[in-house]
Amino acid sequence: MSKIKIGIIGLGTVGTGVYKSLEQFKDIEITKIAVRNINKPRNVNVPIEKLTDNPYEIVNDPDINVVVELMGGVDPTWDYISTALENKKHIVTANKELLAKKGEELFKLSEKNNCVVLYEAAIAGGIPLIMPIKTILAGNKLNSIQAILNGTTNYILTKMDVDNASYDEVLKEAQELGYAETDPTGDVEGYDAAYKITTLATIAFNSRIKFENVYREGISKIRKEDIQQANELGYKIKLIASATIDTENNADVRVHPMLVPKSHLLAHTNFVTNAVALSGHPIGNIVLSGPGAGEFPTASSVIGDILAIAREWDTTEYLLPMMRCNHHSIANPIEINDTYNKYYLSITAPHAIGVIAKIGTICASKNISVSSILQKGVQDNNTAEITVITEKCLEKSIKEVVKELDSCTINSIIRVMEG
Amino acid sequence: MSKIKIGIIGLGTVGTGVYKSLEQFKDIEITKIAVRNINKPRNVNVPIEKLTDNPYEIVNDPDINVVVELMGGVDPTWDYISTALENKKHIVTANKELLAKKGEELFKLSEKNNCVVLYEAAIAGGIPLIMPIKTILAGNKLNSIQAILNGTTNYILTKMDVDNASYDEVLKEAQELGYAETDPTGDVEGYDAAYKITTLATIAFNSRIKFENVYREGISKIRKEDIQQANELGYKIKLIASATIDTENNADVRVHPMLVPKSHLLAHTNFVTNAVALSGHPIGNIVLSGPGAGEFPTASSVIGDILAIAREWDTTEYLLPMMRCNHHSIANPIEINDTYNKYYLSITAPHAIGVIAKIGTICASKNISVSSILQKGVQDNNTAEITVITEKCLEKSIKEVVKELDSCTINSIIRVMEG
Repeated sequence: MSKIKIGIIGLGTVGTGVYKSLEQFKDIEITKIAVRNINKPRNVNVPIEKLTDNPYEIVNDPDINVVVELMGGVDPTWDYISTALENKKHIVTANKELLAKKGEELFKLSEKNNCVVLYEAAIAGGIPLIMPIKTILAGNKLNSIQAILNGTTNYILTKMDVDNASYDEVLKEAQELGYAETDPTGDVEGYDAAYKITTLATIAFNSRIKFENVYREGISKIRKEDIQQANELGYKIKLIASATIDTENNADVRVHPMLVPKSHLLAHTNFVTNAVALSGHPIGNIVLSGPGAGEFPTASSVIGDILAIAREWDTTEYLLPMMRCNHHSIANPIEINDTYNKYYLSITAPHAIGVIAKIGTICASKNISVSSILQKGVQDNNTAEITVITEKCLEKSIKEVVKELDSCTINSIIRVMEG
Repeated sequence: MSKIKIGIIGLGTVGTGVYKSLEQFKDIEITKIAVRNINKPRNVNVPIEKLTDNPYEIVNDPDINVVVELMGGVDPTWDYISTALENKKHIVTANKELLAKKGEELFKLSEKNNCVVLYEAAIAGGIPLIMPIKTILAGNKLNSIQAILNGTTNYILTKMDVDNASYDEVLKEAQELGYAETDPTGDVEGYDAAYKITTLATIAFNSRIKFENVYREGISKIRKEDIQQANELGYKIKLIASATIDTENNADVRVHPMLVPKSHLLAHTNFVTNAVALSGHPIGNIVLSGPGAGEFPTASSVIGDILAIAREWDTTEYLLPMMRCNHHSIANPIEINDTYNKYYLSITAPHAIGVIAKIGTICASKNISVSSILQKGVQDNNTAEITVITEKCLEKSIKEVVKELDSCTINSIIRVMEG
């Protein structure tokens, strides 16, 4: 058995974890590692002759069999990865953005060159997800995903709940602790989760989802009052990445906050933990949960991918047939306005008298059934705080209701997951 | 690409589900099916010439590549499976009892014949578990499992909680609904879960656990008062199959009821759903949950195993290297009396005065710290109902405490999972 030779691009925390963990496997050799600055002090003992600041020395090295890409981003990463594939190297990557934006080209190029691209670490960190979907669940027709895929936002929402604190307070604290970035946009506005659900849905549904068709709303408008009110009604508020597909290949893929019933495991998925609920036939419903990020969990997935390649590498010319992505269909996107959802509305009405009747009348005129409506007393200034939960109705219709309630202040509209 | 040929032993509900689901895969041919009675009417259209009442016609058929065993039990099933392996056939099985009792011989025989034995359906039904552990988690050193592996007992405990009903009432109802068998011993006394944790721990720890070393206690003594009391204290009572291993290969593997803190996802795993919490390095903690039994979920796992073999079958001589079980170490068992646990005790004391002090004194004399102690009023007959939760202590010591509390009635002792 000859040693399989690995090149790594990027030696940050995950790269360091991967390097350390691979030392125990005697049949795997790390040949070269590309870093930005060769002379930077590191808390891992890498022989200096293995380091390079030129990733092309890895992707063009005829001795290297597998390229592990841990630098992130699309430009110039795509150049490195596409060159590596043209040079017949297998790829292991944790790059969710590249997968979401370049997935179609990536998988076509890998098939053309009889190479595999593995990316377990890119979606839900350490949770076993992509490999199970592609292998042991391969006999299923999966048609629904509901997932918590971003640790930062789940941490913020959990802290707001536990500490009864505002979004701004918790974000500031999370930034101080390093759980949120200085510019938190990528996480709190849902881009990170949108990248992940794009690829996850594509793989689970065997049909390409395009990132630009993924509807996206973040958590920055969630108020602590919404979280309290949700609690009283039997829900937790979570940033949910969801995807469904029907039998005509129409896909509804989105990221937005939702009220999740406490009977669902996603409601009990707290702080930086991620969780993915999958449904399909014949399996029914399953939930996979665990650490969605971090040096060690991410290393677990990267190493799992490397081992999968290494174990088959010298016994077959066509390795890991189940892990290939050779579907060719593209899903038809469903516009958010055409979707049906339950809604939570928090309304401040200026005149307490008759307002319940008014809300009821407007909803009925748009064909919307009210599931529950709750008015908590009347304020000193004769305003009323009203919470409405609707039955499932058309997004377009609820927007019309909001427009017609122009005498009221709509504090929040949040979609509600069905129990 | 030539068609892979499958023989199935057993055409009950799972076998029927597998047969129907495999029809969509054009590269898989079901050649022969062994049934007890060829002429029995079935709700699936199987050509009569494919049926046989002699399983040896399958395991000795030189054309058959994979034997799918869905009949269960050890005798005569082991004869069929061992013959099939000697004849170089790959095996897919859902037989938890055979794996627990014959696993060691089974895996040795399969390696000798360069065959794989896959058994995803045998443990936790449809939940992706064995394949993820053997593949994407392969870089981890797993050292702890806590799991709900038996749907019948989880249904009974959930119903006792939801309906505030007794064990006997719920068991009777479950039997009428077909959720429990006429002789429920295999489920309610923990044998089924013990079979499953034997194999699951063996695979996760890469070290053979022997079934006879698995400690086992069932749920038939759980009272509805225990479930109520646990609820008030922030716990749910679940039948937990657990396994831990230390760095010296000492393994503590058991099945018994536990108080599970509501902060743990296992506490929210209800009715017939199963869940498996795994811990190790570098992954940390993950939880996989889903349907633990039933025609469709079981078929999902059986088909996943068959597809894994079928996809590699004609491209390599040594297929599925990661799915092989070629470890040779045997774990040293830890006796239950030598384990450390937290305990819940429900005590009826005949004389209310001074009883709290007495319990405290006896516990202290055995080096047991009391975490909480709760006396709810005094009954008319001057008895007191007392609930104690201890800190972690030696099982042997808690048994001594019980012996010394001979003037009291010990209603229940149940181990408590740490938060």
